[in-house]
Amino acid sequence: MIIITQPTVTDAQIDHIVARIEEFGLRSQIMRGESRIVIGVLGPDELIREKPIAAIPGVESVVPVMRSYKLVAQENGTPPPPVSIGGVPFGSGQRVVLVSGPCSVESREQLLSIAKSVKKSGARVLRGGAFKPRTSPYSFQGLGEEGLRLLAEVRAETGLPVTTEIMDTRDLAMIEKYTDCLQIGSRNMQNFALLKEVGRSKLPVLLKRGFSATINDLIMSAEYILSEGNPNVLLCERGIRTFETMTRNTLDLNAVPILKAKTRLPVIVDPTHGIGLRDFIPQMALAAVAAGADGLMIEVHDEPERARSDGEQALRPAVFEDLVRRVRAVAEAVGREA
Amino acid sequence: MIIITQPTVTDAQIDHIVARIEEFGLRSQIMRGESRIVIGVLGPDELIREKPIAAIPGVESVVPVMRSYKLVAQENGTPPPPVSIGGVPFGSGQRVVLVSGPCSVESREQLLSIAKSVKKSGARVLRGGAFKPRTSPYSFQGLGEEGLRLLAEVRAETGLPVTTEIMDTRDLAMIEKYTDCLQIGSRNMQNFALLKEVGRSKLPVLLKRGFSATINDLIMSAEYILSEGNPNVLLCERGIRTFETMTRNTLDLNAVPILKAKTRLPVIVDPTHGIGLRDFIPQMALAAVAAGADGLMIEVHDEPERARSDGEQALRPAVFEDLVRRVRAVAEAVGREA
Amino acid sequence: MIIITQPTVTDAQIDHIVARIEEFGLRSQIMRGESRIVIGVLGPDELIREKPIAAIPGVESVVPVMRSYKLVAQENGTPPPPVSIGGVPFGSGQRVVLVSGPCSVESREQLLSIAKSVKKSGARVLRGGAFKPRTSPYSFQGLGEEGLRLLAEVRAETGLPVTTEIMDTRDLAMIEKYTDCLQIGSRNMQNFALLKEVGRSKLPVLLKRGFSATINDLIMSAEYILSEGNPNVLLCERGIRTFETMTRNTLDLNAVPILKAKTRLPVIVDPTHGIGLRDFIPQMALAAVAAGADGLMIEVHDEPERARSDGEQALRPAVFEDLVRRVRAVAEAVGREA
Amino acid sequence: MIIITQPTVTDAQIDHIVARIEEFGLRSQIMRGESRIVIGVLGPDELIREKPIAAIPGVESVVPVMRSYKLVAQENGTPPPPVSIGGVPFGSGQRVVLVSGPCSVESREQLLSIAKSVKKSGARVLRGGAFKPRTSPYSFQGLGEEGLRLLAEVRAETGLPVTTEIMDTRDLAMIEKYTDCLQIGSRNMQNFALLKEVGRSKLPVLLKRGFSATINDLIMSAEYILSEGNPNVLLCERGIRTFETMTRNTLDLNAVPILKAKTRLPVIVDPTHGIGLRDFIPQMALAAVAAGADGLMIEVHDEPERARSDGEQALRPAVFEDLVRRVRAVAEAVGREA
Repeated sequence: MIIITQPTVTDAQIDHIVARIEEFGLRSQIMRGESRIVIGVLGPDELIREKPIAAIPGVESVVPVMRSYKLVAQENGTPPPPVSIGGVPFGSGQRVVLVSGPCSVESREQLLSIAKSVKKSGARVLRGGAFKPRTSPYSFQGLGEEGLRLLAEVRAETGLPVTTEIMDTRDLAMIEKYTDCLQIGSRNMQNFALLKEVGRSKLPVLLKRGFSATINDLIMSAEYILSEGNPNVLLCERGIRTFETMTRNTLDLNAVPILKAKTRLPVIVDPTHGIGLRDFIPQMALAAVAAGADGLMIEVHDEPERARSDGEQALRPAVFEDLVRRVRAVAEAVGREA
Repeated sequence: MIIITQPTVTDAQIDHIVARIEEFGLRSQIMRGESRIVIGVLGPDELIREKPIAAIPGVESVVPVMRSYKLVAQENGTPPPPVSIGGVPFGSGQRVVLVSGPCSVESREQLLSIAKSVKKSGARVLRGGAFKPRTSPYSFQGLGEEGLRLLAEVRAETGLPVTTEIMDTRDLAMIEKYTDCLQIGSRNMQNFALLKEVGRSKLPVLLKRGFSATINDLIMSAEYILSEGNPNVLLCERGIRTFETMTRNTLDLNAVPILKAKTRLPVIVDPTHGIGLRDFIPQMALAAVAAGADGLMIEVHDEPERARSDGEQALRPAVFEDLVRRVRAVAEAVGREA
Repeated sequence: MIIITQPTVTDAQIDHIVARIEEFGLRSQIMRGESRIVIGVLGPDELIREKPIAAIPGVESVVPVMRSYKLVAQENGTPPPPVSIGGVPFGSGQRVVLVSGPCSVESREQLLSIAKSVKKSGARVLRGGAFKPRTSPYSFQGLGEEGLRLLAEVRAETGLPVTTEIMDTRDLAMIEKYTDCLQIGSRNMQNFALLKEVGRSKLPVLLKRGFSATINDLIMSAEYILSEGNPNVLLCERGIRTFETMTRNTLDLNAVPILKAKTRLPVIVDPTHGIGLRDFIPQMALAAVAAGADGLMIEVHDEPERARSDGEQALRPAVFEDLVRRVRAVAEAVGREA
Repeated sequence: MIIITQPTVTDAQIDHIVARIEEFGLRSQIMRGESRIVIGVLGPDELIREKPIAAIPGVESVVPVMRSYKLVAQENGTPPPPVSIGGVPFGSGQRVVLVSGPCSVESREQLLSIAKSVKKSGARVLRGGAFKPRTSPYSFQGLGEEGLRLLAEVRAETGLPVTTEIMDTRDLAMIEKYTDCLQIGSRNMQNFALLKEVGRSKLPVLLKRGFSATINDLIMSAEYILSEGNPNVLLCERGIRTFETMTRNTLDLNAVPILKAKTRLPVIVDPTHGIGLRDFIPQMALAAVAAGADGLMIEVHDEPERARSDGEQALRPAVFEDLVRRVRAVAEAVGREA
């Protein structure tokens, strides 16, 4: 850690800072520049991280130089193993995986019809919400356990592994019975109780970036899960909140190559929520693959104008089918299969 | 709801939109402008809200005109009753309340010393975290139930009611035993499972605005709590995330008069997290009162440079004492007591 | 335009609103919903746009339904002609064009060496700044007219057309003598005096999106240029300001398909400033092409660690050469040449 | 400046970094932490600032430690002299000044009537736009020189000094003839050609913060003006762009105490544009004064529903009059007069 002192810092304050650092079991190194005195704090990262050094009088700001995560980090040398959802591997060197399905599970018939259709088009994992995080308490909240049962049935019938969202620590045991992957939604990305809970599961976790989480925040939330013992995390970029109002969110593809470089985890992209405009989802899906995404999560509905949630951003099956063809071409252009 | 159709909309599409609206049990009214056709959708709000009208072909966008909340809304005529924490009332016509204490409960001695000091200066509610939401799993996570016990002890000794954060639905019964108010942190503002759970409690809920929640999102999260039966919610502005890097967050005081006008709930402001810079917390506290805040939540620590969390933004007791005097003067200038 | 009235609107206010609309030479149509009265305002767009209807008592908000631009808009039917820089066409159906060169013109030797190198790799337009907008008055401000002269010389020697930034209305005549394209930087995107001035030039204008301009703001700034008589505008996405701190800006590729759909203008992307991190520029360039960009603007320097501006985000010539190969593959995958 | 090297940095890279620093005429100091090597760069600030140190291989990031501005900075010891507009002083220790008037100058009669009214209520400087920066080229662009003439006439008649916006470097000589203060609007805050031009004027400059400018950007733009020789700059906070859609902008009052602490310049606040909602402008004005503002700029119109620009956010004269009384009370509460 580097301490930048205030321009008005006194010798007595410098002495006090140094004494405090030593009291904390750390060492210091002073650097006197022309306009400012800088103090390096040396010692074990774990020790430095926890100390309120910024609160010492005379300190203007502190610059951490240690990496704030370790389990999630890319290790030099060996490529990380893929993370699999129900046997479908995601990661560098793997095929680009299409995860698709409706926003919400609405009925057996709806789910089965969409599942068959997206499977035929090339999707390899089925998504569908049974517990829906909705801004309004008066909006459809999902079918709950009944939705989970339908997911499991459709999985049995189509052979597609399924992923579904978990919103409450108390639901883990129940949801684990029906799904192949636990999804953490954007609004729960820093629900640390939930992160710890899924960190104790055997299932992989698909962690969506909070819509106002920095890339570092996302990495730290993944670190929570790994630190509880579950190494199987997939990161998902799904759009951030900015001043732009024409789109639902601003899909931040910049996160894709950065996450691929800094972490050992697969990175998938959700262009559906990311841009939120049906007509432009395909282009953003292609861009995501070109940027290096390991997978895409795309909502499909066979009757969007009767959907119980997010119908306006669901692709129709024929549009999805066409998109898969184009995704394959772009994947190939960047040296991958899809 | 108003439907704005696409510039290229066809008569057949208009007919289809109208038919779908009728199928949904609603009525329509067409308005033909020089450059665009607009369709009004008439009927009960509850019915309109849930329909995927934006997904119908030919629709460019929809503009909701109904209010999305009802329980939280300001009722015309009668002023809302105050919301009390352990007998201390917050709201229009009440004194401006100072809620103060350390970021985290660290020890009995620390908590008691700070509590006595802030009480003497004029604080009327004690805050202190026993469960701490931290970006890193390796940071101090709070003392847990031991922290709650210390809060209850210090309450008994000082007479100050206490507020503390809840992070997990499973902890409600335990936390209820020790506290006078349940606090929902910024990162959990849209943890809907938790909102529903505290909505079933008898205790008041202090709901902090998410750092990237719109004002409307905050109102809707309060509506979740009220819709479960708990009318005692206090809203707290605590800074939003913007591009500015010099401050920890951007305290959004614009939210204060808007929330006061649109809702029936008391509004408090947390300048500590809001600006995150010790030296400027007092000015922002005064500004909050001038903007109409019903209370202030301010972190105080008697030894910031030994604090286990957020020491760099804690006020020292003497600074807090001076601030209370200035808060009283500004409160009086805007026609209130503090 | 649609007027949404306040929930408390009175009949007298409705009458007043309607009277005012008629006084403005417009017509009104009232729609009475269950919770709100909505009033449509009908008449010529030009007339509606200018009236302070939102200021009339009883009005809660107004929703414009007319398009705010006309010259820039996509016309149905005929594809727009390309916009050319020195004979190199940009636009739908054209090759994806690489615009490359150093951030600043530093010397004849530097510029010529880089120009030759990027031309060999496949760039077809040369960029280089002679007037540099720098946050600090103490930073290098560019070589001025001397820089322009060097650009013209290198153009003569390499045959590459050149684009360079204009910052002051008074410089137009001088800059026109040396360049093939006038560039408006991000900070001047709403410098309306400058927009009008370049709108009277015969040269094409490369208009960069302001780092906090909405997509609609960008379109409106292009409309300024076209409204002065210059139809040759290229739009450039170059990153917006968000809360993310790991990247210099957040390259907003969502803007690409939207601008392509809504306007008749070519859209190019500047991944160099967009992400600002040398290591990740190539992936963002590829993603831009997959999203539908008509061109890329990428900074290259043969000695970044001696560059006079933005060295840290310049690609080295060999990296650029490799990138061009990959750009060509992705362009082909989306049905274009590069 | 502090260099943080990459985790993978080699000894050869360290040697190269050090050699490059010396070649630049600077000195280095190496600090070896447990997880990272940090290199301090020592020497004159001017020299360090311009060097592309971040571009050297092995460098992960650089942390500047010198202040990027000097003329604008608060000097220790002596309080800065006030900045006056036509004899009315702004600054610490001075009365809080109300600057008021219409958005646009529309006619002699309109301007005179509003000027007399706001003067009577307590305003001491008159504002009014003759050149209007409008998002659309089809919106009213101001009366131009005719508007300036009206401002000068009304100044003569009322005795109120006037401030008006300049948008084009070519207009300086003309505008200087009619006004007491040159206003730089939000969209031109980084129009560096214009900043330099007004830096050569004898008139004070009221510099509005760009709606997506950081506080540091604003300070640097002021530094441009001072570096050209004009010390009379007033800084104006007027709202920034965030994700919030309920307000026109997010008035960032955090900037007020920070700018007061870091610079020697007066700070004024424009709540009219800052929140953009007529009903909440008074509360934000009061909050600004409590936060330490030296002045307020507030738009008033005697017939908002006939205004040619921004009618929906203009206060009516009676509301303004009442607000002035409340401003005085809050000013007094924080130890000032208004």
